[in-house]
Amino acid sequence: MEIRKIPGGVTAAKGFSAASCMAGIKYQNRTDMAMIFSDAPCAAAGTFTSNVVKAAPVLWDREIVKSAQPVQAVVINSGIANAGTGAEGMAICEKTAQAAGKKLNIPARAVLIGSTGVIGMQIPLERIEAGVALLADSLGHSAEKGTEASCAIMTTDTVNKETAVVIDLPGADGEGTVPVTIGGMSKGSGMIHPNMCTMLAYLTTDCAIDGALLQKLVSGIVADTFNMISVDGDTSTNDTLLVLANGMAGNRPITEEDESCRLFAEALEGVCRELAMKMAADGEGATHLIESTVIGMDTKENARVLARSVVSSSLVKAMVFGKDANCGRILCALGYAGPAFDPDRTEIRMSGESGEVVFCRGGAVLSFDEELALRILSEDKVRFVSDMHMGEESATAWGCDLTYDYVKINGDYRT
Amino acid sequence: MEIRKIPGGVTAAKGFSAASCMAGIKYQNRTDMAMIFSDAPCAAAGTFTSNVVKAAPVLWDREIVKSAQPVQAVVINSGIANAGTGAEGMAICEKTAQAAGKKLNIPARAVLIGSTGVIGMQIPLERIEAGVALLADSLGHSAEKGTEASCAIMTTDTVNKETAVVIDLPGADGEGTVPVTIGGMSKGSGMIHPNMCTMLAYLTTDCAIDGALLQKLVSGIVADTFNMISVDGDTSTNDTLLVLANGMAGNRPITEEDESCRLFAEALEGVCRELAMKMAADGEGATHLIESTVIGMDTKENARVLARSVVSSSLVKAMVFGKDANCGRILCALGYAGPAFDPDRTEIRMSGESGEVVFCRGGAVLSFDEELALRILSEDKVRFVSDMHMGEESATAWGCDLTYDYVKINGDYRT
Repeated sequence: MEIRKIPGGVTAAKGFSAASCMAGIKYQNRTDMAMIFSDAPCAAAGTFTSNVVKAAPVLWDREIVKSAQPVQAVVINSGIANAGTGAEGMAICEKTAQAAGKKLNIPARAVLIGSTGVIGMQIPLERIEAGVALLADSLGHSAEKGTEASCAIMTTDTVNKETAVVIDLPGADGEGTVPVTIGGMSKGSGMIHPNMCTMLAYLTTDCAIDGALLQKLVSGIVADTFNMISVDGDTSTNDTLLVLANGMAGNRPITEEDESCRLFAEALEGVCRELAMKMAADGEGATHLIESTVIGMDTKENARVLARSVVSSSLVKAMVFGKDANCGRILCALGYAGPAFDPDRTEIRMSGESGEVVFCRGGAVLSFDEELALRILSEDKVRFVSDMHMGEESATAWGCDLTYDYVKINGDYRT
Repeated sequence: MEIRKIPGGVTAAKGFSAASCMAGIKYQNRTDMAMIFSDAPCAAAGTFTSNVVKAAPVLWDREIVKSAQPVQAVVINSGIANAGTGAEGMAICEKTAQAAGKKLNIPARAVLIGSTGVIGMQIPLERIEAGVALLADSLGHSAEKGTEASCAIMTTDTVNKETAVVIDLPGADGEGTVPVTIGGMSKGSGMIHPNMCTMLAYLTTDCAIDGALLQKLVSGIVADTFNMISVDGDTSTNDTLLVLANGMAGNRPITEEDESCRLFAEALEGVCRELAMKMAADGEGATHLIESTVIGMDTKENARVLARSVVSSSLVKAMVFGKDANCGRILCALGYAGPAFDPDRTEIRMSGESGEVVFCRGGAVLSFDEELALRILSEDKVRFVSDMHMGEESATAWGCDLTYDYVKINGDYRT
């Protein structure tokens, strides 16, 4: 019952191919479109932004995923988000799916669409249609093709983000086990404060699993992974997580929450967590990954809210950038999060490879080893643990520091 | 029935004196303590931070204001917030009130306390006691004394903040009118996202008004003034607004919501609005004041939430700093605020001294005059108006841009 990490991303699972191309949507001299294709029709599950303003591709994908019809391809572009684009934007989204469906010989409604980039700009239709043709002609099953796709969906991301794992599940023939693979890619660096789901993330698996059950697993997993990261508190109009399962691994189909389902869910959660943490670490301008764990809380949801408030605080983020152990700001961020707690019982620790310092206990900030605190704050990843001493529930959130470069990147994004 | 603006601040109203001194609490070579004193006992009203973690002075003031006992003095220090300081911090707060009460010959519980600065550090008791003695000996009724007090409570503020107005109300003798004055000072630049109230703000008036009625007015006014500003989304542990009314103007005491009460409330709201806007404009590192007005909304509270979401968005703030009219971000910030609306009916405009551009209408971002947009974004104050076309309610919020200097100030605050 182990989960083995393997190289690769969206093409790691059996039957999935990918491609990328330079369509010139908005960026020049870099790839800006990607396609994922499955040799067999897939059950699809997804979660989408809770923003009232939803991008055209979000509206398109959500309806298809909800209808539970089989899905076989995803077309994604970077540069323009196709949000705030009205009826014209919706028409462009539909025409993209039609062009891809025609080229791939599948129904237009078997094609999901993703867009990321500037809000309020129209995508040039002829370029995206030309891109679709290029993509369909260059699909491949190799790991490199998956990596290229993960690069093409980047905007202000500084690194591409992909991961894959393998688990063994009982075979369909009732004898022995078969390897089942889950791979994924994601992008996201700014406008990240997911609510219902995250930026763009695409997971593929060859697992045979019931679509409704897959949706249930995904909705649960999102709450503890993608929904627990924050870069800047802005929930995007385009947040989308899609999981495509084509059943080609040959495992005994998962139709109930049995042992196989639990192992698959654990592997899926690991893939989501890793992609989410990669996004937080690559937050716009970030120099540190911040991990905030809340333990000893009364309810799971309260633990999540508190953990997330710490990584969302501009003042905590700026203090980590400045390597200034101004730890009262953590207590302050817990305090305004909403859930009630007793400050007199709260204990706050900061830890890293270099060691651990206790900031706060019994309602008062303690004096601590400033030199050790500086060493911890000089590491790439800084961890805060807040023990509320109120119960047994815990949660972890991830974020990044607030830097000059965040301001620079976002003061001048369109140009 | 007019409201006349006059020079001055907390000493503008009859019977109020103030003082400042260098107590060396944490800062060197600048004033860091202030005192306000009233010649007659005052009715006091106040609102305080909603942060679960409340500073010692907040706990002290809140209890006294709640008990409705008369108040006659306020002692404030900058440099250290006396928050996250446990029982020792509470004892220091009480001893400060005792020292001031003894020196001023009033009960300790007639002395309110305010602190602002670093969280989690203890205030040196002997310095604050020495400061109290200096302050009590140098109280004065002049406008200069009020201004000096407003300077002594600054932390990262770049300018002091004070204002005063006069209205005419019926005299107590039933013949003619008497002038009634309201003055105030405030401080606040970072950790500003008030909830229940704002940073430190002290208003004084010589109006004769019932204490419970004053509290009712103050609670209502705060919702549309101090609670509508945001610098960085962090709600402080120390937020405090206090209004002291000593009745020395000789007006016919206000005891019900009559015409005099309405005029007084309007004047009080104007003073609060001006102090709040001054805080937003002086946000840490800010180069622009951002005003966000939402009109045509279904409920007042929904209008407030939407207006505030725009000025709280890191991406909107960074775009104003960068003078980049990336207007889709405003639509996005409205969208994740919470209240439901129809993006297809939303209209968003940006205006300034130079003119107005329409960003968005009918669910789509429009093309607009980029040169005019740049001219507007080059002004000190930028105004966004979002018309939701859903009803008659409106609200306005104020914030500031996100700059390199915000990050610099907060990456290195303690040193």
